[in-house]
Amino acid sequence: MHVDDLLTTAERQYIVRHELENIRTLKEDDQVPGYPAFRLYEGQSIVQMCLHWKLVKRMYPLHDMEALDKLGKKWYWALFQKQPFEDIRLYFGEAVALYFTFLGFYTTALLVPMFLGFLQLFLPTESIAFFCVFNVLWMTVFLEVWKRKCSELAFTWGTIGMTSLDEPRANYRGVMGIDEVTGRYQPQFPRWKTNARLYCVSLPIVFVCMVGAFFVMLASFWAEELLLNMKKQQSLEAGEIVVLLPSIIYSAVVFIMNSCYRKVATWLTEWENHRTQSQFDRHRVTKLVLFEFVNNFMSLFYIAFYVQDMDMLKNQLAVMLLIFQAINNFQEAILPLLIKYYNKRVTKALKFDAILGNKKTDESGRKKKSLSVNHEPSRAILDYIPELDSDDPRIELAICEGEMEDYEGTYDDYLEMFIQFGYVFLFSSVYPMAAFWAVANNIMEIRADAFKLCRLYRRPVAKRVKDTGAWQRAFEIVGAMSIMTNCSLLCMSPQLRRLAPTMTSVEWVLVFVVLEHMLLGIRHFLHLVIPDRPEWVRVALARINHLSKRALKNERMLKSRRHILRRYKTVHGSHNYNS
Amino acid sequence: MHVDDLLTTAERQYIVRHELENIRTLKEDDQVPGYPAFRLYEGQSIVQMCLHWKLVKRMYPLHDMEALDKLGKKWYWALFQKQPFEDIRLYFGEAVALYFTFLGFYTTALLVPMFLGFLQLFLPTESIAFFCVFNVLWMTVFLEVWKRKCSELAFTWGTIGMTSLDEPRANYRGVMGIDEVTGRYQPQFPRWKTNARLYCVSLPIVFVCMVGAFFVMLASFWAEELLLNMKKQQSLEAGEIVVLLPSIIYSAVVFIMNSCYRKVATWLTEWENHRTQSQFDRHRVTKLVLFEFVNNFMSLFYIAFYVQDMDMLKNQLAVMLLIFQAINNFQEAILPLLIKYYNKRVTKALKFDAILGNKKTDESGRKKKSLSVNHEPSRAILDYIPELDSDDPRIELAICEGEMEDYEGTYDDYLEMFIQFGYVFLFSSVYPMAAFWAVANNIMEIRADAFKLCRLYRRPVAKRVKDTGAWQRAFEIVGAMSIMTNCSLLCMSPQLRRLAPTMTSVEWVLVFVVLEHMLLGIRHFLHLVIPDRPEWVRVALARINHLSKRALKNERMLKSRRHILRRYKTVHGSHNYNS
Repeated sequence: MHVDDLLTTAERQYIVRHELENIRTLKEDDQVPGYPAFRLYEGQSIVQMCLHWKLVKRMYPLHDMEALDKLGKKWYWALFQKQPFEDIRLYFGEAVALYFTFLGFYTTALLVPMFLGFLQLFLPTESIAFFCVFNVLWMTVFLEVWKRKCSELAFTWGTIGMTSLDEPRANYRGVMGIDEVTGRYQPQFPRWKTNARLYCVSLPIVFVCMVGAFFVMLASFWAEELLLNMKKQQSLEAGEIVVLLPSIIYSAVVFIMNSCYRKVATWLTEWENHRTQSQFDRHRVTKLVLFEFVNNFMSLFYIAFYVQDMDMLKNQLAVMLLIFQAINNFQEAILPLLIKYYNKRVTKALKFDAILGNKKTDESGRKKKSLSVNHEPSRAILDYIPELDSDDPRIELAICEGEMEDYEGTYDDYLEMFIQFGYVFLFSSVYPMAAFWAVANNIMEIRADAFKLCRLYRRPVAKRVKDTGAWQRAFEIVGAMSIMTNCSLLCMSPQLRRLAPTMTSVEWVLVFVVLEHMLLGIRHFLHLVIPDRPEWVRVALARINHLSKRALKNERMLKSRRHILRRYKTVHGSHNYNS
Repeated sequence: MHVDDLLTTAERQYIVRHELENIRTLKEDDQVPGYPAFRLYEGQSIVQMCLHWKLVKRMYPLHDMEALDKLGKKWYWALFQKQPFEDIRLYFGEAVALYFTFLGFYTTALLVPMFLGFLQLFLPTESIAFFCVFNVLWMTVFLEVWKRKCSELAFTWGTIGMTSLDEPRANYRGVMGIDEVTGRYQPQFPRWKTNARLYCVSLPIVFVCMVGAFFVMLASFWAEELLLNMKKQQSLEAGEIVVLLPSIIYSAVVFIMNSCYRKVATWLTEWENHRTQSQFDRHRVTKLVLFEFVNNFMSLFYIAFYVQDMDMLKNQLAVMLLIFQAINNFQEAILPLLIKYYNKRVTKALKFDAILGNKKTDESGRKKKSLSVNHEPSRAILDYIPELDSDDPRIELAICEGEMEDYEGTYDDYLEMFIQFGYVFLFSSVYPMAAFWAVANNIMEIRADAFKLCRLYRRPVAKRVKDTGAWQRAFEIVGAMSIMTNCSLLCMSPQLRRLAPTMTSVEWVLVFVVLEHMLLGIRHFLHLVIPDRPEWVRVALARINHLSKRALKNERMLKSRRHILRRYKTVHGSHNYNS
């Protein structure tokens, strides 16, 4: 075994990044050396602040072309083989590997609803009740089993012990002090302050934004209805397209709202000052998902339960699902390809050297991080570090990759799956074929995402994760909601009502209440019965716990024995001396 | 500090019991020494089997009269002071201390609903909706805060690390083997077998029993109705009492069913073969509670939602609550007192020595456990152990205490609180005064239970617990149900319906659905927002975890260093030798 194989590339990257980010200011450093305008306070991560103030433009790891080619052959070129999860993890880190594992697992789980969806085409429409009930239960089991799978992965990856009391992330602000857990000198920030900010400020803001988005949606519906009515009464003398105008405007508004909201949410989560990266991601994702939920699903709820037009719902669902998937695939695979192609041409057209000169501040050879901006003050130290020639091929590579698009983490990918999950399950009793389209999309998605990650984006920073975090909860909540929506759609469906024409409306609502409570009860039961961690993981963890407790006991025993022995020696030594 | 103060009495008791119970048979022991009829197999706890076959009649710890007097003064005689929880724990162990902490905590929490119940008397009846919503939320918060409190207690008591992989309990059966966690030689039984027995056998049996109990209840209702009708039609010429007959017969049947079912449940749980005592208790309690739920609450559900007679519900609730509490107090405090008094007289009337002779098999001096039955084979060993005189006062004490009633653990006490909790919250919108009666009862209950435990019962075996186990879940489920019942009662209540006379039935049901889902949503939100463990407990646990992980790392480092050093020495040593 060579010393280079001891750590995976993701781990090496993680360590370098951790070391760079944890260069924190001391009390006496109150400014960035050479930049008196930028004030620092104690305990701040200097690199992070430089990035924040754009003193350092970007910091990114470089691709390892050889490893990437190998990975690609096993991954996006091997269409009918299992994804090489272990290799993905070694190259891209745990977060990306977990996303692709989830994607594969979820797609496999979708095969059953897809199959049932086909089956339904050949069966009488009343059978929908059975399929619907089966679907929601299947989905519950899927989510529970995924949780187990997650903990298995986290155990083998060694991330299962991650807690919110771990080493703070780079952007964590606070007064420097002794950490209660590890005894290290780290920034300290009281948890109650984070909670207070979270519940007293962020929560109301998010809520207001959600309500706002809801009203925007209502406004678009009203506008559309108004235009339709005007059209009917012949008072409007425009073409057909005018009726579509509200939808188009709405889409544009949602797009703008989304990008604004994303900034607000990120800023708020940063301000809440969560200790670890996982916590930060969880709270950011929670905020974003709530908003996305309103934008993506509220219109369907409105059609289903206010307008109560099932055909309209089905059409809307089909259109939204297909458009959504088409746009996503375009955005993810085709657009970056075009941009890349276009960029290359532009780059070639311009003089290469000129760009090289401008971008020199962006890179260093082996590993990211430009230090050339604040070169002067630390010249003495830097002299000892060998510097790469400016025409070294590695520098060229670094510049090329710096021009690539930035992969902003797995958020967008999960979000896509989340929205798809909602479209498939929330109204599965109305449009069972959704599962088929989802599977078809996902099979492409796996390879497209893989290709995009390997070839179109700058190499993402490896992130350690132990589970899907906020997404697990988001999926679970949509799961619970899908029980409610499907039960109510069933009880509203004319097919079923025809089966028992003597039943009154009240009785149908009561049927809904009973059915829904039963299913929610079963869901809760499944949740209790399926343990979150498989037995072998529990045993292995208990074993480690037992061993380490015993080691601590031994350590303490030895220490106290030594202490007693020393006292004994001192006493008897002095006695001997005296005598 | 004296060496006797190092361990509390509960701890000493726990250790002695643990040692006695863990005398397990080896392969070569296939019978109880001296009793060839009783076959043993490898890994069985000998003492437990002797108890099972009645070779040993009883095994119990003795009271420490001095400590008990001190405890009593601080506890049941000090009416208006805080209970001395720490002293209770030191004397009776964690399980009993936790029960009394719960009792105190729950009673304090009940003060708010009690106060609101009084307030409601002076307010218009429509205010009921507000109070009802407040009550269910209050109860949710109470249960969540109790969980936190539990984990605080468990941490200070050192029981928080208890898991289902701990040391197996005495009655755990299995093939002897190396334990995967600790590496000790212990009985092994695959978890999946326990689960299979639990879900494939026990669960259906419990379900059938519940349905049976439900039909018995229905039968009693039908019989009562039949008799009432006959009475009305003058066809029955008996007195008023005949109409009460079904209720009386039902009560008797329930009593018999209960005692039978308790045996069945205990046997089933024993057969499922759970590893730890906590697991065993949890599964036994779950089975028992399900059955008790049907017996105690189903009739109220029947009246509320099938008969839909709110006055009848209110009366029934009041009668059941008061009778239930009266019977319980009688059973717990007065009956044992009478029995004790009666027993004493009988004992005095008989010749004391005669009893002493019979009971000699029951005790040994300092600590329980009669070994005199199988005296002969181990005479040689026992000769070294000093034996107490048969007229030693300690033996007399042991005999006296052997005659006392057996305290079967906290099950009955928790059950009483559980049923009371159900009566108070499930239908709190109908009978808000229930909280008052509950508080009044509990204030007496605390002292009565304390007195009973100290004076009327044999000293219970100290048990280590980390939480209220199945009771927490049982309370939570009744809590969730109380949201459903109260919402539906509200929407059925004539007072509220009068407020909006234009609303149709369907609309009222929909109001119910919305209100209920909102409250369940808030409950879920509270559940997520209130962490199960306070911050300080989490930090302290993380600290211990960190320290022990570090100790393990150091231990391994030292070991591998020593290993390398030895190899180095060997290689160089032999080299020197050769040269």
